[in-house]
Amino acid sequence: MRPAINCDMGEGFGLYRMGEDEELMPYITAANVACGFHAADPVVMARTVRLAKQHGVKVGAHPSLPDLQGFGRREMKMQPGELADCIIYQVGALKGFLDREGLKLSHVKPHGALYGMAARSPEIAEAVARAVKVFGVAVYGMAGTMHEKVYPAQGLEFVSEYYADLEYGDDGGVIITRVHEAVDPKRAAERALRAVRDGVAESVHGREVRVRADTICVHSDTPNAVAVARAVRDCLTEAKVHGGGTGS
Amino acid sequence: MRPAINCDMGEGFGLYRMGEDEELMPYITAANVACGFHAADPVVMARTVRLAKQHGVKVGAHPSLPDLQGFGRREMKMQPGELADCIIYQVGALKGFLDREGLKLSHVKPHGALYGMAARSPEIAEAVARAVKVFGVAVYGMAGTMHEKVYPAQGLEFVSEYYADLEYGDDGGVIITRVHEAVDPKRAAERALRAVRDGVAESVHGREVRVRADTICVHSDTPNAVAVARAVRDCLTEAKVHGGGTGS
Amino acid sequence: MRPAINCDMGEGFGLYRMGEDEELMPYITAANVACGFHAADPVVMARTVRLAKQHGVKVGAHPSLPDLQGFGRREMKMQPGELADCIIYQVGALKGFLDREGLKLSHVKPHGALYGMAARSPEIAEAVARAVKVFGVAVYGMAGTMHEKVYPAQGLEFVSEYYADLEYGDDGGVIITRVHEAVDPKRAAERALRAVRDGVAESVHGREVRVRADTICVHSDTPNAVAVARAVRDCLTEAKVHGGGTGS
Amino acid sequence: MRPAINCDMGEGFGLYRMGEDEELMPYITAANVACGFHAADPVVMARTVRLAKQHGVKVGAHPSLPDLQGFGRREMKMQPGELADCIIYQVGALKGFLDREGLKLSHVKPHGALYGMAARSPEIAEAVARAVKVFGVAVYGMAGTMHEKVYPAQGLEFVSEYYADLEYGDDGGVIITRVHEAVDPKRAAERALRAVRDGVAESVHGREVRVRADTICVHSDTPNAVAVARAVRDCLTEAKVHGGGTGS
Repeated sequence: MRPAINCDMGEGFGLYRMGEDEELMPYITAANVACGFHAADPVVMARTVRLAKQHGVKVGAHPSLPDLQGFGRREMKMQPGELADCIIYQVGALKGFLDREGLKLSHVKPHGALYGMAARSPEIAEAVARAVKVFGVAVYGMAGTMHEKVYPAQGLEFVSEYYADLEYGDDGGVIITRVHEAVDPKRAAERALRAVRDGVAESVHGREVRVRADTICVHSDTPNAVAVARAVRDCLTEAKVHGGGTGS
Repeated sequence: MRPAINCDMGEGFGLYRMGEDEELMPYITAANVACGFHAADPVVMARTVRLAKQHGVKVGAHPSLPDLQGFGRREMKMQPGELADCIIYQVGALKGFLDREGLKLSHVKPHGALYGMAARSPEIAEAVARAVKVFGVAVYGMAGTMHEKVYPAQGLEFVSEYYADLEYGDDGGVIITRVHEAVDPKRAAERALRAVRDGVAESVHGREVRVRADTICVHSDTPNAVAVARAVRDCLTEAKVHGGGTGS
Repeated sequence: MRPAINCDMGEGFGLYRMGEDEELMPYITAANVACGFHAADPVVMARTVRLAKQHGVKVGAHPSLPDLQGFGRREMKMQPGELADCIIYQVGALKGFLDREGLKLSHVKPHGALYGMAARSPEIAEAVARAVKVFGVAVYGMAGTMHEKVYPAQGLEFVSEYYADLEYGDDGGVIITRVHEAVDPKRAAERALRAVRDGVAESVHGREVRVRADTICVHSDTPNAVAVARAVRDCLTEAKVHGGGTGS
Repeated sequence: MRPAINCDMGEGFGLYRMGEDEELMPYITAANVACGFHAADPVVMARTVRLAKQHGVKVGAHPSLPDLQGFGRREMKMQPGELADCIIYQVGALKGFLDREGLKLSHVKPHGALYGMAARSPEIAEAVARAVKVFGVAVYGMAGTMHEKVYPAQGLEFVSEYYADLEYGDDGGVIITRVHEAVDPKRAAERALRAVRDGVAESVHGREVRVRADTICVHSDTPNAVAVARAVRDCLTEAKVHGGGTGS
């Protein structure tokens, strides 16, 4: 059994490239594929789904606020209803490409600012849940936030992820940044192992905080993402540790 | 049995309204719902699918070239592969809303310039066919064009439509315009009846041309669309004439 | 001298219409022209500028957050720098059309959520100010808010507007809504007169609040905007009252 | 005097990068800055204009068809009037950033498919000319095409460019490709020298064709663009050869 590692993928757009998707695929078990609202276009989505299929990697949807120019990392005040509709649109669009390849949708993982908003706001998390229920799959999110509280309450499977390439605050919450920086692969792998095995992370101020790592997330736009993914995979494989869920 | 009448619907965007969808629904049997590339957004699509469900109207996808500002009525040179991906994206997105409502996708009808390009170009028609095959539904189009030739050759059901509110050229082809003008409902209904029953239309220059009318199309952005749809429906009902197919 | 009345205009997009610009022009002195981020496209902007020229109406820019689908009425968390750049882009684009017609830019009036954000946040108001300083024109806004505090402090002329078709809160602040409702023209005109002459408005809860009305704003997407604009114009003309500034 | 070399710049978007603008600036004399329709956003434009200013590089506008996903390299059937409006919008927007930096607009160079369409169609070239006349600057284009015929006939200065990184057909026309490939810098430089000094290029089939090289173009998205630009600059400088015009 391979350690559960997920990665946001297909985040290019038109001629623009973002992330080394091909190089990352061998190390991961689940791809969260962008759906055109913060990144990706139909061609990129088609290519990414095909790539995941070739590597036997599960495909989840990675829907976003409608903000291509801001890469979905700027909060927008949207009504829960229109937000749910935006998510259904994006997940449905991705499913078209899965249908073509004969693949099933594995999960949904909200992107960027939407992820953060759903972590804090029960209203937003409920909107996410309402949309995901249409597709009956698991939701990836962060333990200790509204994700963990709302999604299961709405009858959805919740898969908690730990971010190998981001820092954590003293409250156990991940610190979202607009641009991702390179991290030390060895340190990232050791932190990931500790998160999966012990449920503990060290915060940016040196405090031990509780985390729950059913799956490890590596961002494809972290500059040295491949090295990080490989180090995490190797470290967890050697330790015979793997996360719990990567979706259905 | 009601006469087969289809209508392009859900063509508003944000606060913008286009077409009297609510008023039209009672008279039609199939709604071709815009998918966000020439018109519509997730909220509009959700509302339109719900509206069709309330009226027992079948829902097809109405995908377009990616050209919101031009309402999908400007030709774009796209490669067949990227075009097919664009269509899969849009149809998939619509299916998300159908899934929520427990409805099945009935058919696909390409919009505007894409419709015209597929009518003339076998390459484009094949790209449409490849995309629609993913969903296994019928395609609406125009007899005497590549639609009729290519779609069935690709194993797809082809449903030929007659436009109640557009003029026909001497070659039997419909004359696509960027803005739709009001037409006389009575004349439109009589023309529609003749098209369905006799397979004949009078061209803009007074010539009789062959048409095949499995279903009658009324554009929702024709200024008096409701009057036209009602007149066509009443005229065909009275004559006990109805078209053949409105999709699966 | 005509009473200073400004109106948001050119808020259609592609085939979509919004507001009766042609009917409104005779009653107003300043048009705030949408710049493509919440509404309008180059064709709409060109047409609107030409229309304003025909009626001898001053043209200001009406820049927005980048949110066409939300009509610029959803708040977005943007950094002040990127916001200023967005505004410069939009005002510059409008100036292209003014250059063609030999007209000068009169003023800038931020739209929708941007207007509201600048009213509350000194950081956002400063970003607006930095952008407008490039063009050296007046800014329209609301007295008693950061508009009044920040714009003049940045060396810009500030023109305070009173909204004829919106309600006011007990704090003297206008209540922004996503969709505008019809209002009674006569009541709107009397309120406008009182606002210009006496600097007083009645809040939604019946309290008298201070307002400063250098110019009266009528929204073009208020359903009966023409009747409101005419009533305001007639009422103020008869009372020989007109606002102070409509920009340079 | 430095040899006239122009480069398309500012072609990133949001977090996406395209081209090594900073590395290229030292070798060029004119930057054609993307205006948001095929690439760039307000932040990218602001940054690019500032960068050009630092290097004493002239700034021209690089307007496109409205096709961000296709990078402006797909032809679209647009009416001349709406095309002219699109160009005015984009050039105006860029001028906003030039105004802030106290720079003058140097020239306009249509991008991608628009460039190619204007080369072939007098109607499109006239639409470009009508738009550029608003700003009274030179137009970059290709000799032997409608560019050379129409722009001067409309009273505009025409600057003919030679592409250092593209191949030429037997008709002397450049071969536009959607993705640019790396080229041998030494060969590119020698070809550029010959183009400027002798007005001759070797076509892809080995024929000598006439070209007119007032300025040499290097695409910033050619993979080894910096090496090409440097080689061309060095080669022309050594030969004491420089093109004629780089705009006003």
